[in-house]
Amino acid sequence: MGRTSDAKNKILDAAATLIEQRGYTALGVAEICAAAGVPKGSFYYFFESKQALARTVIDEHWVTQRRQWEQLLGSERNPLQRLRDLFEATEEVQRVGQQKAGVVAGCLFGNLALELSNQAEEIRGRLQQIFEEQISLIEQVVVEAKERGLAGPAVDAREAARSIVAQIEGRVLLAKLLNDPAQLETLWRNCLDLLQVPAQARTTTG
Amino acid sequence: MGRTSDAKNKILDAAATLIEQRGYTALGVAEICAAAGVPKGSFYYFFESKQALARTVIDEHWVTQRRQWEQLLGSERNPLQRLRDLFEATEEVQRVGQQKAGVVAGCLFGNLALELSNQAEEIRGRLQQIFEEQISLIEQVVVEAKERGLAGPAVDAREAARSIVAQIEGRVLLAKLLNDPAQLETLWRNCLDLLQVPAQARTTTG
Repeated sequence: MGRTSDAKNKILDAAATLIEQRGYTALGVAEICAAAGVPKGSFYYFFESKQALARTVIDEHWVTQRRQWEQLLGSERNPLQRLRDLFEATEEVQRVGQQKAGVVAGCLFGNLALELSNQAEEIRGRLQQIFEEQISLIEQVVVEAKERGLAGPAVDAREAARSIVAQIEGRVLLAKLLNDPAQLETLWRNCLDLLQVPAQARTTTG
Repeated sequence: MGRTSDAKNKILDAAATLIEQRGYTALGVAEICAAAGVPKGSFYYFFESKQALARTVIDEHWVTQRRQWEQLLGSERNPLQRLRDLFEATEEVQRVGQQKAGVVAGCLFGNLALELSNQAEEIRGRLQQIFEEQISLIEQVVVEAKERGLAGPAVDAREAARSIVAQIEGRVLLAKLLNDPAQLETLWRNCLDLLQVPAQARTTTG
């Protein structure tokens, strides 16, 4: 039993790394098993297909990332500062990844959204849910910011949260393309603009 | 001679469509030639490799897109209106693509940036140039907008242009994921915020 779940975890870890480095399409089950150090036969004991594996990699990645997002966005700090904490953590993830692998890997969800949306409806559906959850987590903080007069009264909290997620994805794309995590440094300033944060609140929190 | 360049164009057209639909990695030369209706032998007469083909597809796509961007962003209209024209044209391209293929294909450059940045240095380099050119084209308009008092004086024109390109890419990602070109509708409002456009200029141009 211990041995069994061990092999499954090894496959998941190897797949997560390989998908991050090279995408989904380029990978074969044999290669994943070789990287995991498990016999190919055991793959189909745990996963119905390569797509089922990708689905599990996505789910596990979101469990970890959501925990981090909830912690940062649900803290006791000023709402704007919480958003800033999220941006800095996002940049840090890309920096650490770059130090480890030599290149900025980007966002697993964004990568797979562009690679697979039009080819795997199940993956598309799951990624849609995850992005909507991300938007909801940010939306709650924007609502609070508005209540405290830290965001413009005309701002639509849901739409602004969606724009912030889009800005994160766009900036991560540039960070990956340029292999430069510093592309994420402007997220904070972008967020102040997208939330129409009044000048006074910018100086006290910025 | 006519026949020869005809075959090359057929390969380029088929490759552009297939890369847009399914990405680069999933494609084989044989499949591209079959779709183009040309013998596989002729492929290597025109292209050294699949990567060389992709490079040409990228170049040709940018020739067409840059022409459109220059036309829209270099028009006689108000600078903010020119940016709006660009956003509406971008949305229209995705709408037309969706009507044709049933799905939003997204941005060829963004798709390939996430798929290939860490695997093909030549492609990465070319895409970096293209994104910097896009940023420069928008930057010129932002500079003009600032001169006319249509953008906030504190706005850094280059950085704002970079953020606008990031916003486009992020919104196109959501449009592809959700198969919904309307995700691009907010680009105009996002742009007004990112450029810190004064309230008065918003009402006259918005």
